[in-house]
Amino acid sequence: MKIKVINPNTTTSMTDAIEKAAAACAFPGTEIYAATPEWGPASIECFVDDYLAVPGVIQEIYQGEKDGMDAYVIACFGDPGLQAAKECTQKPVLGIAEAAIAAVKMAAPSFSVISVLERSKKITEDLILQYGAERACRSVRATGLSVLEFERDPEKGRRALHRESKCALERDGAESIVLGCAGFVDFAKELEKDLGIPVIDGVVPAVKFAEAFVGMGLNTSKQNSWGYPEKKELRGFELFRKRQGETK
Amino acid sequence: MKIKVINPNTTTSMTDAIEKAAAACAFPGTEIYAATPEWGPASIECFVDDYLAVPGVIQEIYQGEKDGMDAYVIACFGDPGLQAAKECTQKPVLGIAEAAIAAVKMAAPSFSVISVLERSKKITEDLILQYGAERACRSVRATGLSVLEFERDPEKGRRALHRESKCALERDGAESIVLGCAGFVDFAKELEKDLGIPVIDGVVPAVKFAEAFVGMGLNTSKQNSWGYPEKKELRGFELFRKRQGETK
Amino acid sequence: MKIKVINPNTTTSMTDAIEKAAAACAFPGTEIYAATPEWGPASIECFVDDYLAVPGVIQEIYQGEKDGMDAYVIACFGDPGLQAAKECTQKPVLGIAEAAIAAVKMAAPSFSVISVLERSKKITEDLILQYGAERACRSVRATGLSVLEFERDPEKGRRALHRESKCALERDGAESIVLGCAGFVDFAKELEKDLGIPVIDGVVPAVKFAEAFVGMGLNTSKQNSWGYPEKKELRGFELFRKRQGETK
Amino acid sequence: MKIKVINPNTTTSMTDAIEKAAAACAFPGTEIYAATPEWGPASIECFVDDYLAVPGVIQEIYQGEKDGMDAYVIACFGDPGLQAAKECTQKPVLGIAEAAIAAVKMAAPSFSVISVLERSKKITEDLILQYGAERACRSVRATGLSVLEFERDPEKGRRALHRESKCALERDGAESIVLGCAGFVDFAKELEKDLGIPVIDGVVPAVKFAEAFVGMGLNTSKQNSWGYPEKKELRGFELFRKRQGETK
Amino acid sequence: MKIKVINPNTTTSMTDAIEKAAAACAFPGTEIYAATPEWGPASIECFVDDYLAVPGVIQEIYQGEKDGMDAYVIACFGDPGLQAAKECTQKPVLGIAEAAIAAVKMAAPSFSVISVLERSKKITEDLILQYGAERACRSVRATGLSVLEFERDPEKGRRALHRESKCALERDGAESIVLGCAGFVDFAKELEKDLGIPVIDGVVPAVKFAEAFVGMGLNTSKQNSWGYPEKKELRGFELFRKRQGETK
Amino acid sequence: MKIKVINPNTTTSMTDAIEKAAAACAFPGTEIYAATPEWGPASIECFVDDYLAVPGVIQEIYQGEKDGMDAYVIACFGDPGLQAAKECTQKPVLGIAEAAIAAVKMAAPSFSVISVLERSKKITEDLILQYGAERACRSVRATGLSVLEFERDPEKGRRALHRESKCALERDGAESIVLGCAGFVDFAKELEKDLGIPVIDGVVPAVKFAEAFVGMGLNTSKQNSWGYPEKKELRGFELFRKRQGETK
Repeated sequence: MKIKVINPNTTTSMTDAIEKAAAACAFPGTEIYAATPEWGPASIECFVDDYLAVPGVIQEIYQGEKDGMDAYVIACFGDPGLQAAKECTQKPVLGIAEAAIAAVKMAAPSFSVISVLERSKKITEDLILQYGAERACRSVRATGLSVLEFERDPEKGRRALHRESKCALERDGAESIVLGCAGFVDFAKELEKDLGIPVIDGVVPAVKFAEAFVGMGLNTSKQNSWGYPEKKELRGFELFRKRQGETK
Repeated sequence: MKIKVINPNTTTSMTDAIEKAAAACAFPGTEIYAATPEWGPASIECFVDDYLAVPGVIQEIYQGEKDGMDAYVIACFGDPGLQAAKECTQKPVLGIAEAAIAAVKMAAPSFSVISVLERSKKITEDLILQYGAERACRSVRATGLSVLEFERDPEKGRRALHRESKCALERDGAESIVLGCAGFVDFAKELEKDLGIPVIDGVVPAVKFAEAFVGMGLNTSKQNSWGYPEKKELRGFELFRKRQGETK
Repeated sequence: MKIKVINPNTTTSMTDAIEKAAAACAFPGTEIYAATPEWGPASIECFVDDYLAVPGVIQEIYQGEKDGMDAYVIACFGDPGLQAAKECTQKPVLGIAEAAIAAVKMAAPSFSVISVLERSKKITEDLILQYGAERACRSVRATGLSVLEFERDPEKGRRALHRESKCALERDGAESIVLGCAGFVDFAKELEKDLGIPVIDGVVPAVKFAEAFVGMGLNTSKQNSWGYPEKKELRGFELFRKRQGETK
Repeated sequence: MKIKVINPNTTTSMTDAIEKAAAACAFPGTEIYAATPEWGPASIECFVDDYLAVPGVIQEIYQGEKDGMDAYVIACFGDPGLQAAKECTQKPVLGIAEAAIAAVKMAAPSFSVISVLERSKKITEDLILQYGAERACRSVRATGLSVLEFERDPEKGRRALHRESKCALERDGAESIVLGCAGFVDFAKELEKDLGIPVIDGVVPAVKFAEAFVGMGLNTSKQNSWGYPEKKELRGFELFRKRQGETK
Repeated sequence: MKIKVINPNTTTSMTDAIEKAAAACAFPGTEIYAATPEWGPASIECFVDDYLAVPGVIQEIYQGEKDGMDAYVIACFGDPGLQAAKECTQKPVLGIAEAAIAAVKMAAPSFSVISVLERSKKITEDLILQYGAERACRSVRATGLSVLEFERDPEKGRRALHRESKCALERDGAESIVLGCAGFVDFAKELEKDLGIPVIDGVVPAVKFAEAFVGMGLNTSKQNSWGYPEKKELRGFELFRKRQGETK
Repeated sequence: MKIKVINPNTTTSMTDAIEKAAAACAFPGTEIYAATPEWGPASIECFVDDYLAVPGVIQEIYQGEKDGMDAYVIACFGDPGLQAAKECTQKPVLGIAEAAIAAVKMAAPSFSVISVLERSKKITEDLILQYGAERACRSVRATGLSVLEFERDPEKGRRALHRESKCALERDGAESIVLGCAGFVDFAKELEKDLGIPVIDGVVPAVKFAEAFVGMGLNTSKQNSWGYPEKKELRGFELFRKRQGETK
């Protein structure tokens, strides 16, 4: 089974970390194909970043269809363009926020999300409402560090994650922690050991659920809302069209 | 990996069907252990049935702990005693309604559930609210046939499922169907082909998610609400205590 | 009028306290019959306790039907098996959480519940959502003492209740207090005097509402969801069947 | 115990019918004092009516305080001025919509309300949200007849109530009926017999709950929101002030 | 275009301040007519005040209809009688809470309201739910000062507003402030400068939206719920009827 | 005052119609600048369209900042990229769905939206939830015609709008209609006359609210979530960067 894991930002070192985590958790028969789009911001921390990442994500889905992928993971916690991506294929497409929130609700009665910047919390809060997790979510907290600061100084990042997780646990009553950024994937297991409660990032549950969906033959409904996109003229996306090519 | 699939009712032919479905969808390395409790009703269609199934389910979890199980599935769409079962083990425990609803929300923007009796709909509606799916659920419909009527006359059951699914699709705007009874597991694939939209029962996604949880090492939070049960005197459950034995 | 007040746990000293409180608040023509089930845990503080109490509660309802009871009160704040109990009779059945929450919403614009253990809060939170009181509820707090610790050291219990009620009032903005355990019934009036706001336990409003329901001839709807339980084979509940006898 | 039942409109024949219903359901020791305000509309069917009824209701509460009443019922299904009335006294004050909705939620898993005019439904829908019953309410339907048409031609009213209740039961899935106008009080028992499900008006549960509140000593919280009204100059309510006299 | 701005309380100095603020923000072609009702309380801080202000508000709407007004603003943050006022005219009628909340939701992702007394918060909380802003509202805070204390000691008021706004911003995470009393209108701009986030009172957005509604010809729906009030006998409102005259 | 009205699709005839409608409703001092992005789909009917329109919208906002615009309107009913656009400027930015929903909630107690394709309804439903209008919205209906079919055969479009609006009014109980596509702007007034209830498109209220916001000096909160976008490397948007130039 081939799972394409799309890092919606253009920082290839993050793609590498995501790929490593995905490969580490996959079943033996699963092939992980990590991809970095040609378009998009170096990291995703605000709505502009989130939206500018979407054309690249869509392009990677189209490419994936040509390459015979069996499922897709969008590996940024804002789930950028997730509903658009689901339109582009009948194969399962999982956002890492979507997957992490679905997973944690089955593993714990309540959770908190630790996000990157204060401002990034709104993106997560919107998703929590959209996914019907507003009653299980105790809080969304931020480390105050940008995605790239995390990359540069992982030790500082680790401390900030630990501090906010601790607060979520002790002050907000969270009984599990969701790491709200694909860049946090390496910290989950250590944090879990320190805190004694489940700590999950999104990449791992998204990959595991993708395997599960392929395993059970559960595809995306093409009935109506998420049917293939309407065909129409598209201006100004030369790069996009070049890659998308004959598919559309 | 050992997954114990507990049929909360005492009808062994249903246990067999559930086991077959579970085994058919499992990854090669997964061993399925299906179990029928010694206690409980022959089928589950009302709240009394639902509650009287719980001691048997708990007992099977305790037995599973002794047998070294890696995960548990409670294979009745009422998810009887699910939060109690999660207290009894740190291993993943999945209800089939819980798993089906989590899966379908990722596969389609909306769904309907087809239940057994009219009266059984309330049990499902309560779960849909509890799992935060009230906005994605278009309707809960009933076939009007009991669990055991389904067993006796599968063809009649098939027609009823088809009729209600069609109504859900055409009148209620559902873009996918969830089969709201473990006894419907054999009909999912055929219905899916007929209707052209995803149709999922609960047994299969619960087993696949159980594999996913074990695969990623995601355990049940023992932090607070779902910590191990309080130790205390228990009267009148002789059979229960005999089986539960030294575990508690 | 005969009201059966069922203590779902098997601690008879609690049954006595509940009976005394019920009798003290009843109108002259009301006869209170307090009952302790033969089955069940010594106290109810987690989901396992809650579910294991239900067979005993159902049995007591069946017995009550034979004894010509006019209404039933389930006197544990988790309302264990309440919807199942409502199936077993057309007579009014009131849970003490159900009654307390209904009463307090008419007496105050907001309330907090003081529960026993931290972990027990989830049971109460689930009920608050189910009963549509999530917007009026300011907080659910816990004393950190178990039901039986309360019994052993009432003075310690009194202080803990006072402390948490005070916090609910001053920090959470609660304008009334609901005592979230039948074992707290003796503390309500004293606390009310100390705090200067309504403090209600659940036993008293449940008994008074039971009288009201009988007085106005308001029965439980048997129309559909709460119709009499489906008849079917039941395994392993020898004790249960012995008592339930010819009723079912 | 003295319960003052305030008919917020100025039609004395309705006051008489309400008084009769209240007296018929009261316990022997309960004295019912029905009152018709000097101010207000002849019936209440729109928001203007609802608001213009409030000064008269407040005045009657103040008068009741001088007369030593133990509890108050506001006997119009719009619960006009209910939160204001609760400010004016520490005694229990119950709106008939408030009481009916609280009662029916304990007696049935779902209900529909039958209102008077189509336009009156919005008043009821606002209350259903405010009282946290939006999930249990299947529909609000209207007979299309005004309050006074009901008075003039009760047989036509009876037929309209029957028709809409039947629709609520069969099409909307309601498992009980709430009669959404104090003028419907005489029809409840007959309808209940015809339909085979609980049918409740609001006057009766409000009176019975008032008795229950007095019986258990449960007063209105004066802590904050519903504390006694702020003292201040009031212009233009000559009649109001004359009656209110020294109380304020 | 003629906009009538009704101060629902009878304190003319507040009417003057409201008029000044309304006139200052209006477009050149807009004529502001500020009105003080003959009936009602000197200020509005509790539900009794709120309801007793309504007859005067309705009277002013009727008078406005005779005077050819194009739109109405009800300039008290409790929006007293707003739905009744909307019944009395087809012209736009805007409550200042309604307008402020609609405006702030477009200007900021979250807001807090600063109210007068602690007890007044419930009135605002009810409106926030009714207007569908419960998810965007971070908190409702109170200065603890009455409306008239504000008038008497504006400097003290300014400090209290500043303190609570600061808390809303720093502790509650509000990204904008709504001033929850028409009497605060003079403080908005200064506070906005101090805090660096949008601070809006209600009078200004209500006037601007009234202009917008008139400008686009958007009237109040008379279809059903907010159709003209039912005609019927009205007792005891001599003053009311005298002014309302031939309109009704 | 300069208001830039951005048509997020690349069909200039639609831009012209939008400009005409905007200019027709604006106050004399308002200058309308309509813009068609260089990037994007010819019409917007699915999530892919919606997301691919966003880079062009952002670009137009940046261009508008250089051109000294006072406010922005995004003239597609999916409000594509609205939160991103709000990040890019401190000036007011209004989506036409956002504005129409805010306006209609003040003009009527309930509304329905008429959308283009069945599949487009999900985009609208997501917005209705996000804007807190889920309780006021009676239904989202679709004409079944694409945006460009409307352009080609306006008479067919008119009939379809009429049919669905009529259904919304008569079957769903809507008391006003919102036209869910900028392409419907020419039909609003005629439909309103036919149906006798308020019918609003989104372009007009968005322009009028933009005027109101500028008139009252209400800017977008830059406090946190909607602060200016994070500065970072952006790949593959050559066209985008060329236009955006020195602003970023």
